[in-house]
Amino acid sequence: MKLKAMYSFLNTDLRAVEKELEKTVQSDYSQLSEAALHLLQAGGKRIRPVFVLLAAKFGTYDIERIKHVAVALELIHMASLVHDDVIDDAELRRGRKTIKAKWNNRFAMYTGDYMFARSLEQMARLENPLAHRILANTIVEVCRGEIEQIKDKYRFDQNLRCYLRRIKRKTALLIAASCQLGAIAANAAKDVAERLYLFGYYVGMSFQITDDILDFTGTEAKLGKPAGSDLLQGNVTLPALFAMEDKHARERITAVHPKTTPNEMKEIITLIKQTGAIEKSYALSDRYLQKAFRVLETLPNNKARSTLYDIAKYIGKRDF
Amino acid sequence: MKLKAMYSFLNTDLRAVEKELEKTVQSDYSQLSEAALHLLQAGGKRIRPVFVLLAAKFGTYDIERIKHVAVALELIHMASLVHDDVIDDAELRRGRKTIKAKWNNRFAMYTGDYMFARSLEQMARLENPLAHRILANTIVEVCRGEIEQIKDKYRFDQNLRCYLRRIKRKTALLIAASCQLGAIAANAAKDVAERLYLFGYYVGMSFQITDDILDFTGTEAKLGKPAGSDLLQGNVTLPALFAMEDKHARERITAVHPKTTPNEMKEIITLIKQTGAIEKSYALSDRYLQKAFRVLETLPNNKARSTLYDIAKYIGKRDF
Repeated sequence: MKLKAMYSFLNTDLRAVEKELEKTVQSDYSQLSEAALHLLQAGGKRIRPVFVLLAAKFGTYDIERIKHVAVALELIHMASLVHDDVIDDAELRRGRKTIKAKWNNRFAMYTGDYMFARSLEQMARLENPLAHRILANTIVEVCRGEIEQIKDKYRFDQNLRCYLRRIKRKTALLIAASCQLGAIAANAAKDVAERLYLFGYYVGMSFQITDDILDFTGTEAKLGKPAGSDLLQGNVTLPALFAMEDKHARERITAVHPKTTPNEMKEIITLIKQTGAIEKSYALSDRYLQKAFRVLETLPNNKARSTLYDIAKYIGKRDF
Repeated sequence: MKLKAMYSFLNTDLRAVEKELEKTVQSDYSQLSEAALHLLQAGGKRIRPVFVLLAAKFGTYDIERIKHVAVALELIHMASLVHDDVIDDAELRRGRKTIKAKWNNRFAMYTGDYMFARSLEQMARLENPLAHRILANTIVEVCRGEIEQIKDKYRFDQNLRCYLRRIKRKTALLIAASCQLGAIAANAAKDVAERLYLFGYYVGMSFQITDDILDFTGTEAKLGKPAGSDLLQGNVTLPALFAMEDKHARERITAVHPKTTPNEMKEIITLIKQTGAIEKSYALSDRYLQKAFRVLETLPNNKARSTLYDIAKYIGKRDF
């Protein structure tokens, strides 16, 4: 079953979110609208809006109210990607030129700032102090995650804890917040919102680990960038960490630098696969997924819950 | 009378703000704390926190509550300066190396993001949906102002309206929001908060025009950077706009480019002064100041009001 088919019953509402997204990034500065639309049109799974909507189903669901939360979370995610690409000096994302590549770093900085500012405006429609506190804390953590990623670049002596803390901040907390804020905006019960937060956190961890695996196992066609890009950029992810437990692999991995050639990279990827690091990474991703499922079991049994289950399962096992 | 002497009765509270500012920018990433402290210690007038505190005096003043609003507005201001310096490729600010010069553009981008995120956290302590909406709208406008500044660089055919709109977004609205949010956080009457907003807007306009004048008339020692830096960076400000009404001055000004030498710049500054553009700019600054005074007269007559009067007067006439 394809991902989108799992939540086809949300299609009308997701179109409303998409329309609001497009409206929100419009600006009287055409270059900025163009850059923002370039990003929007690159697609992406819109997984954060989907989580917001599904979480809202546990409360009083009103798309006119919820869509602003969905838009805000997608915009924060996109703004962070734009700034991320500046840090990583990335040329491609999802097979399209990045803002920094198509224009330049400075313009990318402001496009990110603008999208981020617009997301705050969307959230400000919500008259709920708790929601603002959650969002602010989440943004600080995402920021910390990004900063840690700069700090930890080419740091091959980092441990598992360091990696997990980084992906928690970089990815999992924003997905957790999407679930929690969707529930809060729909006035769901407090403990339901908290459990949805926990579910989002576990799914987010599984999601990012799978993402980090795919960077090694995916094809360039599917990834939209060459395999091994993370490592080449100095981002030491889970498969690399596990592979470095092998002495020979460790020697090759720690020698990676920005000018490592595509052929050398292919050899290193093969080596990483031979150590069993991919399987070990999938096992950890799966452990998070199982935790997510256990949280789901404690929630009211409704269509939203079974959809969250399907999506989580798909995300953990996906190959794109 | 020196600026600081005007609000010496706020000294204890301003020290509380300063302490909170230092605490807020601390991070377990030492390079980031270092950069943020580098910025904080560069000083600055802390004019936004002063306005927040004074505006709060029109309501129920509680420094423990208000200080977070003051810190938030100063952090937003500082974050925008850090990103500004990336855009302007500026080496010096207030005589100190900028973050982008001391480290690099990417690090400056994230230092700004982090300070900005921390400011949201401070504001989130305020359980007032209106305050969040005002802040979000202000941030979008500040962002737009920055983007317009990039767009309008070396655009010598811009008109007065274009300039005024840019400084409104870039400067005046954040000062207006400081006044309004201080009042709102202290539960001052709605119309008092709105008039304080208007006062802040007029003062902010006057403040920025004076700032733009000083860039031409100030000494390098006082400015902490060479005179004429704005124009050299392509920022077409009010004195340049007025001077371009003179044909000869127009020819010289429109020929300015990033590699214009310091000696050529000196000649151009002399020329601008000869056209009477400085006096005309001061006159416009003064008109905004008079508007600010008229708004003040409608407010309750208390110590905060007379202090706002003194500060506004000083800011409009200052020579640093």
